[in-house]
Amino acid sequence: MGGGGKASLRYIASGIIKTTNRDTTGDRLSIIRTDMLSLISEYKPDVVSVEAIFFFKNAKTLVPVAQARGVILEAAACKGLPTYEYTPMQVKLHLTGHGRAEKYTVQIMIAQLLNLPEIIKPDDASDALAIAVCHARMSPITTVSSQLQPGQHLNT
Amino acid sequence: MGGGGKASLRYIASGIIKTTNRDTTGDRLSIIRTDMLSLISEYKPDVVSVEAIFFFKNAKTLVPVAQARGVILEAAACKGLPTYEYTPMQVKLHLTGHGRAEKYTVQIMIAQLLNLPEIIKPDDASDALAIAVCHARMSPITTVSSQLQPGQHLNT
Repeated sequence: MGGGGKASLRYIASGIIKTTNRDTTGDRLSIIRTDMLSLISEYKPDVVSVEAIFFFKNAKTLVPVAQARGVILEAAACKGLPTYEYTPMQVKLHLTGHGRAEKYTVQIMIAQLLNLPEIIKPDDASDALAIAVCHARMSPITTVSSQLQPGQHLNT
Repeated sequence: MGGGGKASLRYIASGIIKTTNRDTTGDRLSIIRTDMLSLISEYKPDVVSVEAIFFFKNAKTLVPVAQARGVILEAAACKGLPTYEYTPMQVKLHLTGHGRAEKYTVQIMIAQLLNLPEIIKPDDASDALAIAVCHARMSPITTVSSQLQPGQHLNT
């Protein structure tokens, strides 16, 4: 995401980091970290926003997801970037006015807000853009680590 | 842990990595990674063994623990070290013959096995040593990634 604040959002790039289960967990995490560092070098973001994780949802994938998230947060921190987290409900509420909006509704909103001719694929990339847009539109200029709004700054 | 296999376990060092909640999650994870890398450089282990995580236990701390574990597994992988995981029950069963042994019983066993005059403190360091001893005594020479015994090689 780029641009100068609430009034001007500009789409730059989106995508996903893919790993394969032919690699060990450690190697997959290393790929994620390396890719994160190279994306940070390439796009020079000011912040990194991630989806909040709830333990009562997706229990089966929770550990691998949280492990990957740990690597992503570490990569951001080692480049000096502040990190923010938003719940799916916060994102939906902010983008559609409805906390339980359908995924496709959010995808259409994202495409409209960014002046894209069609929705972003795959779903995970569109979800990531939604979190970025949510942050860009909600965030004040400061990134004080004790603030809990707009998203919860990650400090656990 | 060092030494030459099942018959000769030798205590080298143990400890914990401390972070403070005055730091952000990302900074704490960076400290863990940096410390892991420097421990690997200093002690040159052949493998890294970690405790298996279950989502039905410690739900509240599961996400931060899994995030830290992700960083630890990534640090091991980026140094080319294979990683193994053991459940607390496997560790207890192997060290005491009883899968539900009391923590203190395991601590005493660890001290005895390593010829230490007293139990290791803090508890987390003793737990880590127990996992290392469990791996050292159970492991075959090979570290094939598809093997599920003695511990489950991390490949999810």
